[in-house]
Amino acid sequence: MIRFKTTIKVRYYECDPMGVVHHSNYIRYFECARNEMMDAWGYTVEQCQADGITFPMASAELRFHRPALAGDFLTVTAEMEKLPLAKLVVKQQVFNQKGELCCDGVVTLGFLSAETGRPTRCPERLLAIMQAAQEE
Amino acid sequence: MIRFKTTIKVRYYECDPMGVVHHSNYIRYFECARNEMMDAWGYTVEQCQADGITFPMASAELRFHRPALAGDFLTVTAEMEKLPLAKLVVKQQVFNQKGELCCDGVVTLGFLSAETGRPTRCPERLLAIMQAAQEE
Amino acid sequence: MIRFKTTIKVRYYECDPMGVVHHSNYIRYFECARNEMMDAWGYTVEQCQADGITFPMASAELRFHRPALAGDFLTVTAEMEKLPLAKLVVKQQVFNQKGELCCDGVVTLGFLSAETGRPTRCPERLLAIMQAAQEE
Amino acid sequence: MIRFKTTIKVRYYECDPMGVVHHSNYIRYFECARNEMMDAWGYTVEQCQADGITFPMASAELRFHRPALAGDFLTVTAEMEKLPLAKLVVKQQVFNQKGELCCDGVVTLGFLSAETGRPTRCPERLLAIMQAAQEE
Repeated sequence: MIRFKTTIKVRYYECDPMGVVHHSNYIRYFECARNEMMDAWGYTVEQCQADGITFPMASAELRFHRPALAGDFLTVTAEMEKLPLAKLVVKQQVFNQKGELCCDGVVTLGFLSAETGRPTRCPERLLAIMQAAQEE
Repeated sequence: MIRFKTTIKVRYYECDPMGVVHHSNYIRYFECARNEMMDAWGYTVEQCQADGITFPMASAELRFHRPALAGDFLTVTAEMEKLPLAKLVVKQQVFNQKGELCCDGVVTLGFLSAETGRPTRCPERLLAIMQAAQEE
Repeated sequence: MIRFKTTIKVRYYECDPMGVVHHSNYIRYFECARNEMMDAWGYTVEQCQADGITFPMASAELRFHRPALAGDFLTVTAEMEKLPLAKLVVKQQVFNQKGELCCDGVVTLGFLSAETGRPTRCPERLLAIMQAAQEE
Repeated sequence: MIRFKTTIKVRYYECDPMGVVHHSNYIRYFECARNEMMDAWGYTVEQCQADGITFPMASAELRFHRPALAGDFLTVTAEMEKLPLAKLVVKQQVFNQKGELCCDGVVTLGFLSAETGRPTRCPERLLAIMQAAQEE
């Protein structure tokens, strides 16, 4: 099990006429948490891309529980139950500062070789990093 | 069965460093199609809100099949198999100009009373409009 | 003088808790109009990039006159008084469906060579297209 | 003179096919810094709105000096030379982690009474807070 969490402050322009975070922003918060996780591992998305690997999203499921509001400080989590082979499955949650669940979901990412443009397996370097993160 | 489709041109700023539409935009395209559908029915989201009804999203599932590109003309569909009671379930698809499926998904919307802040049934006016749309 | 105009429907997620289009979207509408203009010329931004030319924005000035609202149909204009040498200066306006001015501004774009990464002159092909557009 | 600065990490979806932050995001970064400043003052934008005062943007000028990149840590500043009467004039700058200036500009905000919908003077509470911030 690998778990990561980060904090995101809701930005005013992310809120809609109902005064709440527009639903489309949660999938962006999810990505922010995953990318912060990779930063924390010392292997950024940009380095992966430079190494010829990208992670296009294959699917996403989101459930919206309660709206986040302008000015809220959100905790966004990313959690992986097992190491990826061809697919990376990440459970994600967004909590407000009261600890209330605003949104949760699961995203599945593939690995794509920039060279061939075709699906590939999780690169060894990333796998080793995840293995280490898992054992911590 | 109710079906609606609209056309959306991909905007440059919606594309990411991979040169493709960032995944977070498809859920926005979905909303555009649903809102255009309501415009076509002559009962806009803004009028619904003025009538005290909002439609917060309860859940969304998205599958990403192939990337849409900057400059693509997309066809975005919304399809309802049955009339809503407490929930509105909408199947949505995004095709590029070659007719290739880029993304599809299902979104579920609730009905919320602005007065009470609580879930409510689909308003009669909207139900009547959908009934008529269904019979066309 | 070259003039172009296009129509953009305000999207719900572009509106903020005040119920109006968030100010940051007008610079996006401006870009949409410029890109539609290039589409109309038959020389898209994507083709320019394929030809090794990009147009980074050098500066922008915007004045906000009255808010556009969710559901508004906007007319967005792009106007060039003279053909560009090293810089492309475009006057832009956004009107609502009542013909009221919501926002106007001026953006200045440079031409950048993808090969050298350095400023360059307006490419001949684009200049010829603009010349023709000017004479219409 | 009042000065404030905050840090913003560039988000992947804010970057465009050129691999750089799309120009439209800088005006959003500007707003983030202004809102963080108000948070630091203990008088949030949301509280202002609850007190019946909003700050619509009247105008903005932006100059783009060098592109910010995916993963960059930006320092965003807000600076006011004098206390506002009817207008709040804020100078803003965006630097990357090397201290290089990416974008700077000036935004002018008005004060609007929610009750009358008309321009109003800077509210006393906000003026007192700014006075204190200025003297620090």
